[in-house]
Amino acid sequence: MKNQIGIGILGCGNVGSALVLLLQKKGIDFNIEKIAVKHINTQRADYIDTSKLTDDANSVIEDDKVDIVVELIGGISPAKALIEKALKKKKPVVTGNKELIAKHGIELTELANKNGVDLLYEASVCGAIPIVRLLKESLAGEDISRIIGILNGTTNYILTKMTEERLSFEDSLKMAQNLGYAEKDPTADIKGLDAGAKAAILGTIAFATNVDLNSVFIEGIYSLTTDDIDFATKNSLVIKLVGVIEKITDQKDNFGGQVSIRVHPIMISKSHPLASVRNAYNAVFIEGESIGEIMLYGKGAGGFPTASAVLGDILDASHNISLKTFNRFIKPKEVAMFNMDELSSEFYISVDVADEPGVLAKVAHIFGKNQVSIASMEQIGFGSNAKLVFFTHKAKELNMTTTVEELSALDSVRKVGSVIRVMTELS
Amino acid sequence: MKNQIGIGILGCGNVGSALVLLLQKKGIDFNIEKIAVKHINTQRADYIDTSKLTDDANSVIEDDKVDIVVELIGGISPAKALIEKALKKKKPVVTGNKELIAKHGIELTELANKNGVDLLYEASVCGAIPIVRLLKESLAGEDISRIIGILNGTTNYILTKMTEERLSFEDSLKMAQNLGYAEKDPTADIKGLDAGAKAAILGTIAFATNVDLNSVFIEGIYSLTTDDIDFATKNSLVIKLVGVIEKITDQKDNFGGQVSIRVHPIMISKSHPLASVRNAYNAVFIEGESIGEIMLYGKGAGGFPTASAVLGDILDASHNISLKTFNRFIKPKEVAMFNMDELSSEFYISVDVADEPGVLAKVAHIFGKNQVSIASMEQIGFGSNAKLVFFTHKAKELNMTTTVEELSALDSVRKVGSVIRVMTELS
Repeated sequence: MKNQIGIGILGCGNVGSALVLLLQKKGIDFNIEKIAVKHINTQRADYIDTSKLTDDANSVIEDDKVDIVVELIGGISPAKALIEKALKKKKPVVTGNKELIAKHGIELTELANKNGVDLLYEASVCGAIPIVRLLKESLAGEDISRIIGILNGTTNYILTKMTEERLSFEDSLKMAQNLGYAEKDPTADIKGLDAGAKAAILGTIAFATNVDLNSVFIEGIYSLTTDDIDFATKNSLVIKLVGVIEKITDQKDNFGGQVSIRVHPIMISKSHPLASVRNAYNAVFIEGESIGEIMLYGKGAGGFPTASAVLGDILDASHNISLKTFNRFIKPKEVAMFNMDELSSEFYISVDVADEPGVLAKVAHIFGKNQVSIASMEQIGFGSNAKLVFFTHKAKELNMTTTVEELSALDSVRKVGSVIRVMTELS
Repeated sequence: MKNQIGIGILGCGNVGSALVLLLQKKGIDFNIEKIAVKHINTQRADYIDTSKLTDDANSVIEDDKVDIVVELIGGISPAKALIEKALKKKKPVVTGNKELIAKHGIELTELANKNGVDLLYEASVCGAIPIVRLLKESLAGEDISRIIGILNGTTNYILTKMTEERLSFEDSLKMAQNLGYAEKDPTADIKGLDAGAKAAILGTIAFATNVDLNSVFIEGIYSLTTDDIDFATKNSLVIKLVGVIEKITDQKDNFGGQVSIRVHPIMISKSHPLASVRNAYNAVFIEGESIGEIMLYGKGAGGFPTASAVLGDILDASHNISLKTFNRFIKPKEVAMFNMDELSSEFYISVDVADEPGVLAKVAHIFGKNQVSIASMEQIGFGSNAKLVFFTHKAKELNMTTTVEELSALDSVRKVGSVIRVMTELS
C-alpha cells in the first residue's frame, strides 16, 4: 500500500464530520487533504481543521494529493457531475448518495470501470448495515429469491409508537420530528420514497439488473390508523413498511424472468424476525436457495453509523489502490419488471359501512364478482361507527383495486379505509 | 480470471455434496477435479461423479489441475497436515473446520501468507451467516467493543422448546436428536464446547489477537431447569446460551488492554433482538463505537447453508488468484485475557432450602459477607419444595463462587441450583 492515502471529502454535515473523526482515529494511513463545504465560515466541531476547508468542490477533485474522493453532498446536482469528474481523473469514489445511486448507479459504475477505479456506495443503503458488500461478495454465489427490508428508520419508529403506545399517526410523527428522526417535511419518509430508492439499489445488486426507480411501486404509511394497528395486534400480526425485492415464480416455483420491486406496508406474524425490529432500526431479511434465510439488523441512519460504512468503503478502495485493481462490475442483465396489477397477495381491508340490514350481502357480492375470496370477516362497532374488516385469500392487485372502487361507489359504504397486504407465509 | 478454476474437495458428507451441487449450478467457471472420501463405495447422490472420487487425500492436493483445495473433513488430524501441504504448494485453502481454526488458525494463516495464498474459513462460524467477512472487511475500520452470539443451533433449539413448550431439558434434547439437530453424543453442543470454538475464532478476528481456546471460559446448559425458565419468563427475561467476546473497560469506560471471551447461559430482556432468535437459528450481535449495534441472523448449520459460505470463499479465492493477490493478514496483537474471577455480573441464583424460620437470615448473611448485594428475592414453593430465588446486583465471579460454596455447606440449604448471569443492560 502507498504510505499514505489522501482523502478529499465533498460535504461536511453530520456524516462528513463523523468521518473526519473516524479517519483521525485510524491514524497515519490516511490524510484528509481537502474538505469542500457550502459555507466556509459555519461554526464546526473543533476536530475539523479549518485550513482544509474550501468552497470549491472542483479543487478537491483536482488536488493531486487526493487519491480517493468521498461524496457526501446528496442529491443529483452537483454530486453527479463531481463524481463523474473524479472517476474520469481515475480517482475512486465513495458515496452515501442513495438518490443518485438509485437513479444513475449503473451508468456511474460503468464509468468507474471504464476508468479502472472503484465506485463504492455501502452507505447509501441502511447506514451501518453492510448489506451492499454482503450481496456483492458473501452472497455472490447465492441464488437470491427474495429480500424484504425495513429500509426506513423514521417510519419504523412511527409504526413502533403506534403499535406499542397506541398513538395516532400524527402524534407518532410529531415525536419522530422532536427526536430528529423525521425532518420538518417528512414526505420522503412517510410516502415511502426514501425506502423506494433503497429498494431499487438492492434490486439492482441482488438481481444484477438495472432497476428503473420509476418502475418501483411505492405506497406510504400516512393513512394507517390505530384501528388497523389494533386489528393487527389482535390477530398476532405486526404492520411494517417494507421494501420487497423478489423473483416472481409460477405455481411450480419456476422463475419466468420477471422481478417485483415495491415498497408498501405489510402485516406479518409477530413471531417473524422482522416483527421484532423496533424504533428507528433497519433490517434486511434475505431468502436464498442455499442460505435459507438470513437477516441483518442495525442502525440505518445517523452520522457515525453511516460514516462507519463510508470508512469501510475507503479501506476497500485504498486496498484496491495498493493492488492496482478495482471491484468486479457485473454487467446488468435485462430483467423484466412484473406488472403490479398481476401480483397476488392476501389483503386486509377495512370498510366503514352504514349499519343496516343487507350491507354485508352487497359488500360480499362485490368481492365475489371480482374474484376476491374472503377468508374471514368481522364487524367492529355499531351505528355510525360500524366497520367491516376482512382478510382475503390471495387475490390479484387489479381485482382488489376494482373491488375498492366499486365498494367506494356503494351507497351503504361510507368509506373504504386501509388496504394492507398480508404476508402470512412469513411466520 | 483463469478460464476455469480446478477445485479439489477433501470430504464429501453433507456439506461436501451440497457444495458439489452448488458448483455445478455455477456453470463452467469451476471444475471439480477430485474429491477425497473415506469410503469410495458408499452410496452417494446421483450428481456426484464417482470417477472423481479417491481415497487418497494427498493425490487431490498434488493434482496439478487443482487450483483451490476445500477441506471439509473436520477435526485436527489429518485435516491440519493436508491443509499445510496444500498451502506449501501455494494452493489457497477454503475450510469449514472450526476446531482446527480455533486451535491453529493463526499458525495456518501465517503459513498461508508466507506462501502468498488465501486461507479462508467463513463456514467455520455460523454457517450461512457471513460474520467472518463482515468482521474482516466491512468492520475493518470499526472499534468493536462487544460481540454476543447465539453460536450453537442445537442448544438454542433446546432452550426454545423449554421456553415455549415448557418441556424439560431431557425431553427437549430428545426432540433435537430426533430432528437431527443434536448428535447421539450431544456433549460438544450442550457443554458449550462447539460455541466455545466459534467464540475463540470470533475473538481472534474481532480483536486481531491470538485467542487460546483453553483460556475461554465455558459453561453449558445441561443443568438448566424448567423452574429457571419459568422464573425468567415471569420477569420478561429469556435464557440464551451465548458466546461473549468483549473488551473489559473500567468505570470510566477506558479499555485497559484485556478482553473476556466466554460461553455461558445468560438471561436477557425479551425485547432484545437476540431474545427473538428461535429454534436452530444463530445470531451474532455486535456493538461498536461508530456502528452502534448490528445483528446478523441465519442458519448456523446444515449442508446447503454451510456450502453456500464455502462457495462464497471459493469465489473470493478464485478472484484473488486472477489478481495474483491474497487477503490481508493482520499480525495478531498481544491481548491479555481478563481473569474470569474478576468479572462483574448480575446473577440469578436459585437455592433449595429447608422451609424453617431463620433460613433467609442465614442465606442473606453469606451473600453479605461475600460482598454480593441482593437486588430482589422471592420464595417459591413450601415445605420440602421451598426455594429461594435471588437476583443480585453486580458482583464479582469469585465472590459468587465462594457464596455458592458456603451456601452449599449450610445445613438449611438442600441444594444450590442454577446460577445464571443476567444482562439487564441489553434491553
